[in-house]
This record gives sequence, structure tokens and C-alpha cells, in this order.
Amino acid sequence: MPGNILGERFVVVSFGESHGRCVGAVVEGCPAGLPISEEEIQKELDLRKPGTSAVTTMRKEEDKVEFLSGVFQGYTTGAPICMLVWNKDVDSSSYEKIRGRPRPGHADYTAFVKYGGFEDYRGSGRFSARVTAGFVMAGALAKKLLGHAWGSQVYAYVREIGGVKSRDMPLDEIREKRYGNSVRCPDFDAASKMESKILEAKRKGDSLGGIVECVAVDLPVGLGEPVFASIDSDLSKALFAVPAVKGVEFGLGFESARRYGSENNDLFKVVDGKIVTETNNSGGILGGLTSGMPLVIKIGFKPPSSIAKAQNTVSMETMEQTSLVVTGRHDPCVLPRAPPIVESIVAIVLADHGLRGGFIPPILKKSKSSE
Amino acid sequence: MPGNILGERFVVVSFGESHGRCVGAVVEGCPAGLPISEEEIQKELDLRKPGTSAVTTMRKEEDKVEFLSGVFQGYTTGAPICMLVWNKDVDSSSYEKIRGRPRPGHADYTAFVKYGGFEDYRGSGRFSARVTAGFVMAGALAKKLLGHAWGSQVYAYVREIGGVKSRDMPLDEIREKRYGNSVRCPDFDAASKMESKILEAKRKGDSLGGIVECVAVDLPVGLGEPVFASIDSDLSKALFAVPAVKGVEFGLGFESARRYGSENNDLFKVVDGKIVTETNNSGGILGGLTSGMPLVIKIGFKPPSSIAKAQNTVSMETMEQTSLVVTGRHDPCVLPRAPPIVESIVAIVLADHGLRGGFIPPILKKSKSSE
Amino acid sequence: MPGNILGERFVVVSFGESHGRCVGAVVEGCPAGLPISEEEIQKELDLRKPGTSAVTTMRKEEDKVEFLSGVFQGYTTGAPICMLVWNKDVDSSSYEKIRGRPRPGHADYTAFVKYGGFEDYRGSGRFSARVTAGFVMAGALAKKLLGHAWGSQVYAYVREIGGVKSRDMPLDEIREKRYGNSVRCPDFDAASKMESKILEAKRKGDSLGGIVECVAVDLPVGLGEPVFASIDSDLSKALFAVPAVKGVEFGLGFESARRYGSENNDLFKVVDGKIVTETNNSGGILGGLTSGMPLVIKIGFKPPSSIAKAQNTVSMETMEQTSLVVTGRHDPCVLPRAPPIVESIVAIVLADHGLRGGFIPPILKKSKSSE
Amino acid sequence: MPGNILGERFVVVSFGESHGRCVGAVVEGCPAGLPISEEEIQKELDLRKPGTSAVTTMRKEEDKVEFLSGVFQGYTTGAPICMLVWNKDVDSSSYEKIRGRPRPGHADYTAFVKYGGFEDYRGSGRFSARVTAGFVMAGALAKKLLGHAWGSQVYAYVREIGGVKSRDMPLDEIREKRYGNSVRCPDFDAASKMESKILEAKRKGDSLGGIVECVAVDLPVGLGEPVFASIDSDLSKALFAVPAVKGVEFGLGFESARRYGSENNDLFKVVDGKIVTETNNSGGILGGLTSGMPLVIKIGFKPPSSIAKAQNTVSMETMEQTSLVVTGRHDPCVLPRAPPIVESIVAIVLADHGLRGGFIPPILKKSKSSE
Repeated sequence: MPGNILGERFVVVSFGESHGRCVGAVVEGCPAGLPISEEEIQKELDLRKPGTSAVTTMRKEEDKVEFLSGVFQGYTTGAPICMLVWNKDVDSSSYEKIRGRPRPGHADYTAFVKYGGFEDYRGSGRFSARVTAGFVMAGALAKKLLGHAWGSQVYAYVREIGGVKSRDMPLDEIREKRYGNSVRCPDFDAASKMESKILEAKRKGDSLGGIVECVAVDLPVGLGEPVFASIDSDLSKALFAVPAVKGVEFGLGFESARRYGSENNDLFKVVDGKIVTETNNSGGILGGLTSGMPLVIKIGFKPPSSIAKAQNTVSMETMEQTSLVVTGRHDPCVLPRAPPIVESIVAIVLADHGLRGGFIPPILKKSKSSE
Repeated sequence: MPGNILGERFVVVSFGESHGRCVGAVVEGCPAGLPISEEEIQKELDLRKPGTSAVTTMRKEEDKVEFLSGVFQGYTTGAPICMLVWNKDVDSSSYEKIRGRPRPGHADYTAFVKYGGFEDYRGSGRFSARVTAGFVMAGALAKKLLGHAWGSQVYAYVREIGGVKSRDMPLDEIREKRYGNSVRCPDFDAASKMESKILEAKRKGDSLGGIVECVAVDLPVGLGEPVFASIDSDLSKALFAVPAVKGVEFGLGFESARRYGSENNDLFKVVDGKIVTETNNSGGILGGLTSGMPLVIKIGFKPPSSIAKAQNTVSMETMEQTSLVVTGRHDPCVLPRAPPIVESIVAIVLADHGLRGGFIPPILKKSKSSE
Repeated sequence: MPGNILGERFVVVSFGESHGRCVGAVVEGCPAGLPISEEEIQKELDLRKPGTSAVTTMRKEEDKVEFLSGVFQGYTTGAPICMLVWNKDVDSSSYEKIRGRPRPGHADYTAFVKYGGFEDYRGSGRFSARVTAGFVMAGALAKKLLGHAWGSQVYAYVREIGGVKSRDMPLDEIREKRYGNSVRCPDFDAASKMESKILEAKRKGDSLGGIVECVAVDLPVGLGEPVFASIDSDLSKALFAVPAVKGVEFGLGFESARRYGSENNDLFKVVDGKIVTETNNSGGILGGLTSGMPLVIKIGFKPPSSIAKAQNTVSMETMEQTSLVVTGRHDPCVLPRAPPIVESIVAIVLADHGLRGGFIPPILKKSKSSE
Repeated sequence: MPGNILGERFVVVSFGESHGRCVGAVVEGCPAGLPISEEEIQKELDLRKPGTSAVTTMRKEEDKVEFLSGVFQGYTTGAPICMLVWNKDVDSSSYEKIRGRPRPGHADYTAFVKYGGFEDYRGSGRFSARVTAGFVMAGALAKKLLGHAWGSQVYAYVREIGGVKSRDMPLDEIREKRYGNSVRCPDFDAASKMESKILEAKRKGDSLGGIVECVAVDLPVGLGEPVFASIDSDLSKALFAVPAVKGVEFGLGFESARRYGSENNDLFKVVDGKIVTETNNSGGILGGLTSGMPLVIKIGFKPPSSIAKAQNTVSMETMEQTSLVVTGRHDPCVLPRAPPIVESIVAIVLADHGLRGGFIPPILKKSKSSE
């Protein structure tokens, strides 16, 4: 399969460009019988919307989702679900000016080589973070499915921005407070420092990276298909599809590389008749399979490549050194908008493996008449 | 596709169990006309062999690779290539004793739930690092293909063990010296400290993790298929198939999350008529596509879960607390054996994308008679 | 992959329902640099349009194709191409009346069981021949690609309706005359008899089946991937996706089952420095690979299941015998509208294998500026 | 996926060459907990064995199946099952003589172009009917699975050879008698005429084609994934992988193209509380989904291309006309050996769709201990 198709049984086909007519997704393989409405998708989509605070891009997008197929009388039908948002507030003028001079850190150069100059370069085209609107639409459906099938919840939050770290907090508190401020960090003290950091970077024409943590709870034991489609394999694959992601780790991740085995192993115990572990250093994954403990993932985002400072580059036409200043409207830090995207990606992969492993039935109820 | 199949055009099917008859791989999709011999595969396989030094497991494996199909008169034919090594030095007795008491950190518990107790548990079965022998066979073929097609080289080495770090070194030096000692670290001073650390952990009945770095050079620009099959996506997916991997990052990785955009962006320049970047913080990836700069990946391994100390666990039969001591022959640290495995995995993914993107032709020479 | 996705490298994702908002397709994997316009797609789409003659359904559909993504400045960009037609002339009233009483020959019963009653049953939903509008959009792109890459042409025509057969004719004549009458049969005498047969059946409230033949010329030698993705395998798979198809054969097909080998083998000869065969009983396929001779396929269509006569059926609610009369607007014979659909399907599969086998480059021109 | 991989969830990877070391298959995705032995596979394999009567090739093959992986203590484990037979009675001398002069009707010419002369041409290599031994091993497993899960049975028999047709018979009689004679036709009168026809053709140095019919009973309603992976789509795809197949039809097939809709539609009725149809012209498929009625498929085989008569061909080296006589040991008619192959292919596709649709659980029993 070419690259814009993800999954095996809950399949997401991403389409649309930043400055084209629309951005959307087709979800193929969603079981029949899931109650879903445009409003539910919209709610998730609104969480990634730009233009909502000083810390994000000024681009205003209405982003009203529309179902084009696959939903009938308020339920999924088992047929492909095509969803999209139309692009409205589009201004491509700044991109015409820099065409031919690749922006450092962006895909301009590699895309030009890959697609022979035929790529839609306006607003970064397919490489824009705007395509993640399609991820969120598909992810909203996946989250609904996980909740419906297992009562599971997936939640992501900002763990670190520009070196400012969120403190450790109980999962429930994280879940409740994570969208309580503009940076989406449940530790409000840290959040306020993060916001200052972002605004300072913005003033300097610079940008900041950070770390998102995602947690998924109430998952069945055994999601994943070792060896190559283990749950960590497929989660990381999907997460690296999110622009600016440069690192993914599970549980203690790289920190476990510095531990002794005796410190790192999670010991088994029985609580309420269920097998659990005393610690969760593994992040809820053993042998590439979910263990039933909370799935914990950390995702490292680089700072946005679009900065207001002059940067060296080359002219692809003359092959001579030149420079450019990236104008347009950009996020000084993508982290505040990342949690709903990360949640979506994680939910999509879990839904896919739920179906692959037979943990979700092909019809969610036997028959509508039996309600 | 179920989980034991990797790739789209250079496809690896992994089969075999730790204590079964054999471990192997079928490679489907390798172009016709690649000169290859069992000796070339063997050379790579010998690099991951256990029993070669004090820092690895005592299990002795002859591991003589055999081609069962797909190679004729010294060349690949375009047909599936089945390769395997027969298992010889197998002792399953220690596994019978602990059956029913899942070893902390291992897949025993999750595999039992996933496969209903039908899994071959001897020697961890499919979850054993022994299955990576199949990865190395397939990877040796992929490495040959990359060299043949592009003159590319893929090399991995131990970057860190138990907190001891290798110093920064030029790529050429890394390549030449990486297999020069028992821990596979090109910085021989660090290597000697790492070795001491491992032996100390071994004496204590404990184990150590670490970090492997992998570099691939002379790659074409444009490998990868955004958005979901971007080159980082597919590399990370495959790398998490290696047992004990808990984190993957590209270029600066998580460190870039703490940088300003102006520090992190790699500026373009022209050298010898080619577009390159001044720094390589991105690790050779822009927009999910290879940039032509060296591909740089760091992979974090947890310490082996098999330790000689008594650990708490539960009886899956009685659901009561118990404990166990893992006996058998195990590596106190997998890092020394990891570089050839990591190289193989990376080469497989690059070969796959080379074929997907049309960077490698379906027949490597027009005709054998034209040699 | 679930069932609404076809192909490996030129991938078609079908979406939309007969009486939903739209019918469309996403084509993922089309190389960058193919010049294409909505007008070119429209031209093909108009050929399958109903309401154009007495022998087809009265349903009027404007069916104006719209590109939603993947085309920029008149060229494909390498990104997914989403195309659709909006549904306009929709009347679902007749379907409400018969809900619960499955129509003989239709998917009503099996779809109800498969999707638990959640399926969009209006106008047969996903099982309607209307979804083939999406096939034709994708196929128009594929045909353009085959012409651009190889100068190939794909043409289908009605070979037989209700027992009336078209005479054997030269390929060029077939190609030129095939759309010259309402039944799409290049033998105009036979066409006139076929038309009478259809109108007679229509008067009786009955329907007729028939056979379409499809020919593809100027193909490269070696399309197909034995053993399971041989070119006949993948063509037949795709052709059986067309509603009402009950048989597929290549070259002499079932007739070759009655021949001696000495009569059936196509002997090789050299013409103009090329290896060809004296006869083409194999239909241009040897060992599952295209031979360079014209590809010849026959496709058998059953008569439409919707007839105006009363038919026995059962009530799925009461499980008692009942009967129904299918009202609504239906084709008495689908054959006249089938050729553009068959051409599309065949072109899609050939394009897919052209890309898989490296016969079509990933970028159609090196760079737009080099035109 | 390249061509030697079939299926999505019950996946068959075919490997091995006619005159190489072995022929085999890896089955990936078979649920854990299926009781299976080499003896059961062997029984099926023996049914396709050559050298058992005057009507088949004289090549003697022991064909003793060996499990290399995936089966433990008599049950499938959920891991990939590698199975093979070693090649023993191999004589490649006749192939060396004709190398460069493609045999009419064979893949020699197309394979040479496709694989650049690197293909293993001995005994037709991958294009030999010998690779179907791998299909039968995988199919034996699939048949066991279908029986275990649903009590289903798949049986094929010779319907026609050289124009001699088997009479219509009740399904039970077909099943019981189908392997009762050397041509595998349950109508013993017809069988005796078929045998004479074959022996006559053999004497003349010629060959004969024919038709196999396959029936599968006791299937669930709803197998198949429209539109592109409908059950007829996937069955036909797999059946065209069998060498010499030139046509596939379901139910009445091409005959329905000559019927009125009122004659062709199968009317619904209720029998024993189940919805069935009065006739089964559709061959058990409605809308690409199984209807619960017997699945009926007819497969047309061309006469073997290897005949003892001199035939015209060309020299690929000199590009001049020449001729050749195909020597070696060949079947004058493949039909007698085709039924077990066809049954296997059909069972594989049904097993795959059984898993895809959730009709077969991922673990066949909850736990071995619960037996």
C-alpha cells in the first residue's frame, strides 16, 4: 500500500492538502452499528483547532466536519466513511515567493525531489500539520469505538515544553485537567511557565519543541501481533506520521536503558482477581502485547521549522547559496495542539488491533430492531 | 496481514521458535539478479552469534544458514527466498519448571492470554531473541542489495551501556572499529568500561540495558511514503519488533524537544554540486523522506528481563502470589549482539522503500548473459 | 485490508452509496506528473450514464465529477486523488416499502445478515451498480496513465445479449465502432437485434444478461506477479467486483477445456524483430504474465435481478412466505452500460501491475520545468 | 505484497521450485488451538500425488510433509506454520536442452523477460504445477479449520474432460464417490470414457483439458467483503493461481448470461426456520457474500502445454524460427490431479474470510487445560 493508508482492519485513508479544497479521511472497516454523529467528531476536531489562543497560529479555520458516506440513521453501516472539512481561510501568497528555496527543517527539498516538482507546495501541501485534521476525524471515530467496545479511554497531554516539565500526577487528574489551559498541561503551574516560554520564543521569532505523553486505559490483554505488528511497532509507526515527531518511547523508554534489570522488571501480583504489575515501567506492553496495565507513550516533538528569523538556504534553480525569511502564520510551538492528534493516532491503532485480534465484533449489536 | 510479515515489496516472513526445529525467514520480492551466497549470509549471522564471549549467553548455536529456495546458480531468481538455521543446542527443561508462573518483564503472561496456552513457551518460543536470527538472514540479503544498488552502507554500534557512553567519532572510524571488541563499541576506552559493567552485573545476577546507534549512508533522496509510511514510521515499526527495544529516535530525537527552532533547523548549502545541510540534527529525514544526509537512529534497549535473582510473580493456575528464579542461559546485556540485528532491520526497511519508490529496478541486470 | 480497497500501488478506495450524498473514489499511488482534467474523467463517466437511451434505466444523473484533492495545476501531484459525483435524482420511497422482504437475486438478505440491519439499504446502497461510477472515475485516470506510459488502449464492447452474438471483427474496427449504438456492440446488425431483445424483455417486465469482451493492446511483456497475483488472478478479482458478473475467462477460456493441447497451444514466431504467437488462444497471458499479445477477457453478466414480475420471497420479520414486486427505475439489461465499467476495472489492474513491476516510473517527467 | 503471498488473515506464502530443494508454504494467521498432525496433511497431499495411475505423469514423488514451525504438542500455536516436502526424483536434463527455445503455452518466454533470465527454469521452476503441493499443504490446514469451526466441507471433482461430461448427481453422492476412480469423477460411466479419452490423447502425444466443479457446504451467511474482496472476487483470484486455469464461473455462470431474469433469480423460502432459496443458480453467492446455500464453482482447465509433438517456436538467442519437442514426464491431462488442489484453494479463501469476518475466533478453545 502507498503511504497514505494506515491499518489493516480499521483502515484510515488520508487525503487533502493544506491549501487545496479540503482535508479529509476515509475510514474503511469500522464495524456496523456504532452510533456516531458529526457533532461528536466536531467536538474532537475543535480541540486541535488553531486560532484559539495566543500560543497557536492565527490561521482561522471553521473546520466543520461533514460525513459524505458510511453513516445512516445515526449509525455506521459497515461501509467506508468519508469525512472532510473544507478549507476556507487560505492564503498561498507567501509560498509563491519562496518556491525554489527550500525552508530549513521542512519537506520542501525532499518533496521536490520525490515528486519532481509536481507536489502541491502551497502551505506545505500534504506535509502540512493541517492533514492531521483528517487524523482527528478518524481518531474521533476510533475513540468512540474503543469506548463503546471496552469502555477504554485515551488521553494525551503536554508533558514538557522548552525544558519546563509537568509534575507526575494521578491518571484521573491528568484526564480531567488536561484541556484546562491553553497549553494542555494538567499541571497548571508548569502550564503557566510553558506559556511564558512560548510567548517569549514567539517574540524572538523563534519556536519551541516539547514532549507529549499519552495514556490509554482499560485495554484488553493481548492487543498486538508480534513480531512485526507488535502494539509498540504499530503505535510508533503511526505516531511518526505526525509532523515534527522525532522520538517515541514506551514506559520508561530510554531511561530503562540506564537501569538494572532488577530495577526495571515489573513484578506480577493479583489485585481483585486480576493479574497486574506492581510498577508499570514497561508502559503496559510485554512482548509487544498489551498487558492490561495503562499504555504509556512519550512522544518528542521538535520545534516548528517555520521561524521568523532569516535562515540560510539554497536556490534549487541556480544551486547557489541564498537565504529566506519564512512568513505566513505559524505556530511557535505545536505542543498545545498535539494532544488531540496524538490521542487520535493512538486510538486508531488500538481500534485496528482490536478488530485484528477479534476483540471487537464486526457488528456492534446483533440488529437495530433488538435495541 | 498478521504480524509476522514485514514490508510491502521487499517482504520478510519470519518463522520458527527458539526451541522448535529451526528459525528462518522467507524473503519475497527481492529483485532477480542479485549475486548472493550462503557464505555471505553466514558472515552476518556469525556476528550475532551467542557464545562468543564472556558478555553473552553460553548457549552455543552452530547456526549454519541454508537456502531452501529462490537462489539459483549464485543469483536471486525473483522467487521467494526461504532461509533457515536448524536449532541444535536446545535445553527446554528449565521452562517446564516455571510454566504457569510468568517471568517478570517477559511475554509469558500476555502470550498465554493471547494464544490461550497453546503457544510454544519453550525458550520463550516466538518471543525469544533467537527469532532475530531470521531478521539477520533477511537483513544480510537487504544489505547486499543496498550495496549493489546504491553503494550504501548500514552500520550500527553500541552507543551506551549501563550509563557508560561512547564518545562522538567520525562515521568512518565508527564503521571500521565497531566490531573490534566484545561489546561492539568503536570507542575502545568506553568499551572496556562497558565490559566491566556487564561482568559486574552478571556477577550480581543482574542485567544491563543500553543504546545502539545506527547510521546509513549514501541513500537516495526521497525514500519513504508520507504520511503513514514515512521512512521514520516504517523504521521505527520494524525496530520495535526487536525484543527489548523501548525507545526509538531520529537525529537529535528527544533532545530536539528541548531546543529552539533556530538551533534545531539544519541549514541548506551546496557542496560539490549537491544540496546538503550544515548540521544533521534531523538525522537525515525531512518530512518523512530521506534527505541524502546520513540516516541516524538511536534505539534504547531495556536490560534483559531474565535475571538470576528471585522475583515475585503469580501462579496463573491458583492466582496466588509466588516467586521464581529464572535459570537457563541468558545474556546479562543484549547490546553486544544487537548491532547486526539493528543493521539488518534498518537495511530491510530501506530495501523495501527502495523498491516501493522505484529506486531499485526489478531486475538487477538486463540479462545474465550480458555480464 | 477490508473489501473497499483494491490494488497495491495504484490503489482505489471506493466509497459512497446509491442514495447517500455522493459516490466516489480515492486513488492513492498514482505517479506525480500525469496531466489530467475533470473534463477527461467526465468524458468516461458520461459513457456509463443512465438515462441516455430506451435500453437503460430512467434514473437521470448529472454525475459531474469533482476533484477534491491530489491534482494541482493540471497534473497529478503524487498525493491521494479524491474524486466524487454528488447524488441528485434520488427517490428512496420504493425501498422503504419492501424493507424486510429481500428481493430475489439481490444482496438484501446477505447484506442484512452481514451488517446486522445497519446497512444503508436505499437503492441497494453499496450493492448498487451506482458505485461503479467510482470505478469509472478511477479507471479514467488509469486509462490516461496507461496511454501516457505505454500508448496502451483498453476497450470493451458487448459480445452477446440474450443469446444474440456479435460476429468476430478486427480489433481496430471494434475499437472505433463500439460506442456507435445504444447497446455498445460494434456489429451493428447484431446490435439492432440485441436492442429488440432488450425492449421485448422490458415490455414483459423481464431482464436479460449477456457477455462483454475486453481487449487491451500494447502492453509490456511481464505484467503480473505469480503465483497468486498473476495478471489473470488480479483481473478476475477486480471484475467480480462489478455487480452481476458471474463468469470470467481469458482467451478461449472454457472452450480451451474442450481442445487438444496441439490445437490450443499458441506457437511462437518472430515478426518485426519481436516474439509473438501465431494464434492468441491464451488471451495474451502465459504463466500469469502478459505475453505482449492482446489481452482478451470475456465477462458473463447475469440478467438484472430487478424485474417487474411478482416474485416469491420471505418476510425476515415473521419468517413467513410472501411475495413482492420490485418497483423503481431499473435497467432491463446492464450490458449497454457495462463496457466503460469493464474498461475501467481492467485499466486499474493494469496500472497497478505496471507500477508494481516497475513498468511505470514514480514521476512521469523529471521536472515540470523541463517540459 | 508481491505475488507469492495470498490472503489477509489466513495468509499463505508459497515458496520452492519444481527442481529446487523443496516446495512448501508458510501459513501465517492460523488461529491457535487447532489440532493438526503431519498425517492429516499427508492424506490430502497423497491425493494430488503424481505417479499413481496411467493417466498422470510418471514422476514419482514421495512428498512427505514436514512441519518446521508453528505446531506444538499437536496443536497450532498461533505462530507461522512452515511446511514443506523435499524434492527427490528430479531430472533436469531435458530442460537444459531446450533452454532458450520457449515452449508454446508455457511461461518460458514471459518468465525470461520478467526475471531477466535469472529464473530457475528447471522443470518450469515456480511455474510448475509442483508448487501446488504447497497449496495443498496449506489447504489441508484450511479444510481442517473449516471443519472444526463450522462443520463445513469442501469437495471438488472432475465435471468434464475432453468433452465428456459427468451427469448431475446429488451432492452427497458426489462427495462420497469423487475419489473413487483414477480421473476423480463421481459418475463412473463418464469416468471410464474420460479415462479412455486421456489414454488416447496420450498415445497421440497430445493432451486434454476439462472442467472441475467445486462445492462448499455449511458455510455461514455473509462471507466476503464487498466490493473488491467479495467472496467470488477472492475465490477467482486464488483459482487463477492454479496453472492451466482459463475460466472461473459461479453457479450458472456464463449460462446465466443467456437467461431471463425471471428464470435466473433464486426465490426465497423458509425451510426448518432458515431462509434458503428454491434454486441455486447464483451458486451460493448474493452481492458478493455467501448466502448459506452451497457454494458452486466451475473451473476450466486448458490442456497441458507439454505435448510430445514437434512444435514451432523461436530461438530467443538468434531470434530465428525453430522447433522443439518437449520431452520429460508430463501429465496428458491435469484434471485427475486438480480436485485436491481446487479444494485447497477454495478452503484457503474461505478460511481467510472466516477470520476476516469474525466467523472464526482467534483462539479455537479458551485454554488447553479446559479440554
